[in-house]
This record gives sequence, structure tokens and C-alpha cells, in this order.
Amino acid sequence: MYLSKLFIPITKDLPAEAKIKSHQLMLRTGMIKQSSAGIYSWLPLGFKVMKKIEQIVREEQNYIGAQEMLMPTIQSSEIWKESGRYDDYGEEMLRIKDRQGREMLYGPTNEELITDVFRSSVKSYKSLPQLLYHIQWKFRDEVRPRFGVMRCKEFYMKDAYSFDISDEEAKKSYNKMFYSYLKTFSRLGLKAIPMAADTGPIGGDLSHEFVILAETGESQIYADKNIFEINLNQFPLNDSSLQKMREEFTKIYAVTDEKYKKDEFNKNVKKENQMITKGIEVGHIFYFSDKYSKPMNCLIDDKNGKKTSVKMGSYGIGVSRLVGAIIEANYNNDVMKWPKSISPFDVVIIPSINKNNKENLVKAEKIYLELKKQNIDVLLDDVDENMSNKFKKHDLIGTPYQIIIGSKSEGNNFEFKELNSNSEILSLDKIKIKLKVK
Amino acid sequence: MYLSKLFIPITKDLPAEAKIKSHQLMLRTGMIKQSSAGIYSWLPLGFKVMKKIEQIVREEQNYIGAQEMLMPTIQSSEIWKESGRYDDYGEEMLRIKDRQGREMLYGPTNEELITDVFRSSVKSYKSLPQLLYHIQWKFRDEVRPRFGVMRCKEFYMKDAYSFDISDEEAKKSYNKMFYSYLKTFSRLGLKAIPMAADTGPIGGDLSHEFVILAETGESQIYADKNIFEINLNQFPLNDSSLQKMREEFTKIYAVTDEKYKKDEFNKNVKKENQMITKGIEVGHIFYFSDKYSKPMNCLIDDKNGKKTSVKMGSYGIGVSRLVGAIIEANYNNDVMKWPKSISPFDVVIIPSINKNNKENLVKAEKIYLELKKQNIDVLLDDVDENMSNKFKKHDLIGTPYQIIIGSKSEGNNFEFKELNSNSEILSLDKIKIKLKVK
Repeated sequence: MYLSKLFIPITKDLPAEAKIKSHQLMLRTGMIKQSSAGIYSWLPLGFKVMKKIEQIVREEQNYIGAQEMLMPTIQSSEIWKESGRYDDYGEEMLRIKDRQGREMLYGPTNEELITDVFRSSVKSYKSLPQLLYHIQWKFRDEVRPRFGVMRCKEFYMKDAYSFDISDEEAKKSYNKMFYSYLKTFSRLGLKAIPMAADTGPIGGDLSHEFVILAETGESQIYADKNIFEINLNQFPLNDSSLQKMREEFTKIYAVTDEKYKKDEFNKNVKKENQMITKGIEVGHIFYFSDKYSKPMNCLIDDKNGKKTSVKMGSYGIGVSRLVGAIIEANYNNDVMKWPKSISPFDVVIIPSINKNNKENLVKAEKIYLELKKQNIDVLLDDVDENMSNKFKKHDLIGTPYQIIIGSKSEGNNFEFKELNSNSEILSLDKIKIKLKVK
Repeated sequence: MYLSKLFIPITKDLPAEAKIKSHQLMLRTGMIKQSSAGIYSWLPLGFKVMKKIEQIVREEQNYIGAQEMLMPTIQSSEIWKESGRYDDYGEEMLRIKDRQGREMLYGPTNEELITDVFRSSVKSYKSLPQLLYHIQWKFRDEVRPRFGVMRCKEFYMKDAYSFDISDEEAKKSYNKMFYSYLKTFSRLGLKAIPMAADTGPIGGDLSHEFVILAETGESQIYADKNIFEINLNQFPLNDSSLQKMREEFTKIYAVTDEKYKKDEFNKNVKKENQMITKGIEVGHIFYFSDKYSKPMNCLIDDKNGKKTSVKMGSYGIGVSRLVGAIIEANYNNDVMKWPKSISPFDVVIIPSINKNNKENLVKAEKIYLELKKQNIDVLLDDVDENMSNKFKKHDLIGTPYQIIIGSKSEGNNFEFKELNSNSEILSLDKIKIKLKVK
């Protein structure tokens, strides 16, 4: 993609309403544009990053055998009355009347709807376990939306639901999701800590939230550094291995400030391993057994032909929120460096251009075509602007690698730079190797 | 995927409310489930087909240089008041008040919102032309939703918008989309006819709808068969070639019954080329110049520094509707055969299984693994059911190729069948070749 063709409205002035750095960066680089309070359009740069995150989430859900489907955004109030949550949910639920006066709502979550799908379809233990998920827009009518995509009204979420015959079987599904979440966040370049959590309005008796480290995070975290030493790859995808994995993680001390007790922290964690930092919640998993299946009469025949309420869990990842969270975790000292797995581009070519000499631009275009042929996603900055401004701009756009064609490049050797590192002079062949083995 | 694991609730009884064959088939094969009147959940089989259609639409939009972004589903009423359409739109627009009493709406279309994005971003003719598109859920509060996904309330649509400095330039963007649409429908295995159309509530003075042939279609079509003889591949992607392409298509007679006049038809189309059939609208493109940019003050500096309203067009494809339309075009005599490009699976393996002899299932599993290794998407029917029922089921699921392991298979040779054709006995190597060159 040529930068001059990319629809990327870069704003130089910092908007006043943007208080946190992810919100600032996303507006400055034209990743999003607010359309009304707490509601955003995703412009091409932001959209591309969000789609890459979505794809990694999808692959890791598929890997554990979850099946993708899609529930609508608008739901009938009927099923919420069955579960008893219609009145409980409060004003954050966007309630709607259609032209015939029927009570509808914009789904803030989907436990009721998936239970309704399931009860009309599955009747026997033989079809269990089932893991179903969808990635869909949701709405919460926040009274004071803020922090850009981190706390907005219309947001994009993956939510999965598990269906099992017994509590014991259901824990196996829970462990699979626990594992899938850790793999997902790791592929997104994030350090995520699973923490025992309260269940809130979803309900249930077992719950973990996944918190990533970011200095600007909303929650204070107290944890044992050893939690980052556990190697996920040692656990194959089977029930006993995943049970062991969850135990490994949960026996290590890690809490948010609500549960923090100083003496416990000191007793459980060696001084040199104590980590006190901040974090952002990016995922939350719940096991709530028959909390929805019972009132909604979602029954399954067990082995003996006896009807029993199916046992359910739900598992959420905030996909649009992750875009902001990843920026909070990676944007420091005026430099944003995207993790390679979700960067909007693999590499940017930055030629020094001036009106009378297009030689560097010609070289840049040649390299551009070479790299495109190798399926490398290249951005070419063909804008006529001085190099200092270009560098500032690309520090924000955040492509992790740069090929700079200016005073330091010599013949067929070019300046190659990884963001936050020093540059080196390399031949195009060597650059290709660097880009491919990333 | 093993059929026993697939979440595919097959209904044997024909639901009464399903009047047309796509609605019937989608419910019978568990592609969708109604959640409330005109609102559906997409279950794994239906979701997979819809995603494949979406991806083809995306690739063909990207090919002509359109950039993908995403606008939210919920819009503020403010911009609709600016354009003057808030009062005009009528009761089909789902109007919402948020908790603070602000007037919002669920977008039925996005001309206003994209104009708002554009006017705050682009100021100069130098950034033109621009083609932006998104694929998003939309809502129309139909008073009598019917025909399943063909006329529902919440539907999935690709809409694109073009921005140009002059009417002349804008026609070039229009031609690109015209071309992109024909390519898209062709890749979906559809015979699509572009027809000059009225502009309706979108407005403007140039418009075409794309109608595909289906005996159960809603509109009567009168056309010259020669329209299917034009080879799209002869037109490279440049302005003069695409102008010629549009002329080639539009000079051939093709109208719906509203514009049909018997004497014109007979004068313009030779008797042997006269085609009278039915069709379904699957795409619609509009050029409306400054209809929205003028009232909304979306101004661009031209070459002379003079401000002028940007010239716009809009271009829609009903992605969820296409699933139904493709079924209407391909489901005949109780057999649905998906076009290969969007089939939920490349091939299905159907072993004859009985309780005392699992030999065929073992063979089937071996073939399954072999084909998976070659990146062929295989469905394995591991359900213990008689062959006659299995065949009936797969006639509806619609995988175009079947490998049947039963009485006719001999050693390492198996029965291979393309739907609606006779079967042959082939070695696995020969089957692989058939599947790959498809």
C-alpha cells in the first residue's frame, strides 16, 4: 500500500477528550473516528489491526474444537424475562421498541440467546460436549463512556459458551478455554495473568479474569513473577494435562487490589519475585452450571434417559478493547511498536524524497514490488515530506520494521531498522531474511 | 469435521412459515435458527457459507482498490437531520432513545455516516479518488418480514462509497464497482444481469441493479441471452476499458417487468435470443453526485483552490441475502449443490456403517486424514444411520462431491460422485486430483 493512497487521516493536535495514550494514539493515527459519544468508526488502519486480533482469537478457539456461529445483535426481551435478567440488568441495557411495540434490546451479552438456540437443537448427552462461539458487536449504554475503545458503548467481542452433562465434564471445557486464552494472549505479544475473579452479573461459582500488564492499567496487581515462567507448550491438549496446567497457574500468587492482603503476599511470594504493577482486563471466563439452563428449561437426556439441566459456562474476550489494551502495553516514549502478529504492515519503506530528485522513490518502488512478491505486506511512504516528520509519523503508526532510503543507504544496501533499536546497513537479500524469520 | 461433532440441528419436518425453498432448506439443514420475527442466528453451517461469500466480496472490492473500514451499527440522528432523511425515512428505520434521551437509530444504510467521516478527514482533490467500504449488520424494521434471510430485519451487507472531484471522475469509480460486482457474482457461480434501475430513497441519476436468475425470483425479467456471452476477462482494470465494458453490457436489452414493453423487446431482441425468466436482486449501485455532500457541507479544494462538494456514489451487496439467493438458484428436485467457491465443505465421505462392522468407518477415517493433509476441507459422516437416509441428508447439505464407502467400493478404490451426476469408481489418488483441479 502507498501511504498517499491509504485512508489514514493523521491528526497532529491532541484531542482534549482523549485522556489515555491508546485513545490519543488511535485518534492521532486515524485508526478510529468518533461518530457519537462512545461509538466509533474503525478506519482502515485500526480496522486492519482489529481484524488480525480477531483472526488469532478465532484460530485459537477453533484449535480447541469450538465452532463458530453468529447470533444477531437485536434480541427479544422474552428470553431475558425467562432467565430473570430483564429487570435486573439495569440501564446499561439498550432497550428498544420496534414499530409494533415489541420489547427488544441490543444484546450486551448472549447467555439467554445461546441457551435458546441450544435447547431447541440438542436433546441428548451423546451430542455433548459442545463449545460454540461467535464474534459480534455488543452494546452497553454507558452513562459516561471514556478511554476510547477501552470503555465504549458499541464494542466487538468474542463470546463462547460450553455445554456439558455434568459439573465434572464442564470443568474440562473450562480448562480448554483457560488454555486457549493464554495461547491467544501470548500470540498477541501480551503477558497475561489469569486471576480468580468474582462472577458479577453473569453469576456462577468459578471464574477467572485475564489481566495484561500495562503501567496505565485500571487495576493494581500483586503477583509472583514466576507466573511468567510457566511454559504453555509443555501441556498437550488433553483433559488431564489441561487440569494440571490450570493448577500450575492458579497455585501461583496473583491478585488485584480488591483481594490483596499484605501479609499473605509477603508470606507467599519471595521478596525478589514480588511484582506490583498495573493491569487491564482483556478476558473473563465463567462457569455457572445451570444458572440459565434451569430457568430456561434447557434439558438433556443423560445416559439413563433422565432429563437434566445442561451445565454451561461462558467465555469472553474483548476484541475491540484489545486494540486499546495492546497500545497501552506497547506505546512508550512516543514510540508505538505493534507486535509482529498484528501489525498493520510487516515493514515500511521510507525514502527521502525531494522535488528535484525522485531517485530514492524509484528505488523504494522497486523494493516494494520485490517484497510484495514474497507476500510481505509493505507500506511505502511516498509522501513528499521531510525525513524528520516521516520518522515521527512512523513512530506512531508503529510498523515494527523500517527500510530507510536516504543518506546512509549505499548502492544496493539500505538502512534497516527495527523500532526501538539501532539501524544497520544491509542488502535487500539480508533484509528479506530478517523479515521472513520474524 | 466429523458430522457427529458438527452443531447442525437437522429438522426433518418442514416448518409451516417457510414458504420459499431457500428458507425451507436453511431451516432443515440447521443453517439458521429464527430468534424473533425476521431475526436469525447463523449456525455453523450457514455461518461458514456466509463467511465464504463475504470473503469473495472482500477480495473483489480490494482488487479494485477499495479500502475496508467499519462503521458502527448505531448512529446518531443528527447526521440524518443534516441530510434531511431523518423524517423521510419512515417507519422502517429502527429509532432508539439512549438512557440520556438522545435520538439514535440502527443504521439501515450509511450515506450520512460515511459523509461525516469523510468531511472531517479529506480536504484536497489530491487525496481523490477514494473508495471505502465496510461489511456490517444493518436493520430495517420490516412490518412483515418473510422469506427467511431474503427479507429479514437484521441483515449483513457490504456497502461501498466513492468520492471524486467531478462527475466525470466519479463515473470511473462507478465503472470499477460495476466491474467488481460482475466478477463477484461470477465467482459465486451466479449468472448476474446488470439492469438500469430507479434510484428510490438513495437518490441520484445513475443506477444499476444486479439481478440473478432464479425461477422463484421476485421480479420478472426480459432479456437478450447474449448478455451472458460477454467475457469479463477481456477488460483490463483501466478507465477506458471499463467504460467500454459498461457500454457492452448496457447496450444489450435487459429489463424487469416495470420497464418492459412488448414491442421494444421484439424490436431489439431476436426471437431465438429472447429470455423471459425470473430473478432476484442481489446488488445495487447508485451515483448521486452531491446529494449528501452538499447539505452536509462535505467540501474539497479543487486544483484552483476553489471549494466544491465532493461527488459520491454508493454500492451495496446483500451478503446474508446472497446465501438465500444462491440456494434459490441452485436447489432443484430436492438436491442442493453449492457452488465450489462457497460450499461449506469441499467433499463429504459417506461410509456405510453398521454396529458389528466398523471397517468402512476405519477406511473413511484414513481417507479423511489424507485429504486434511492436502488442505481439503472434508466432512466425515460418522453417524450410524442407513445409507438411504444419509444420501437424502447430504442432498440437502449440498457438499458438491461425495466419496462413498459401501458396497461398490473395492479395496482401495471408492465410489466418487459429483452431485447431480453419476458416480465412478476411482483410486484415492485420482479422487485427490479431481478435488484439486475443481
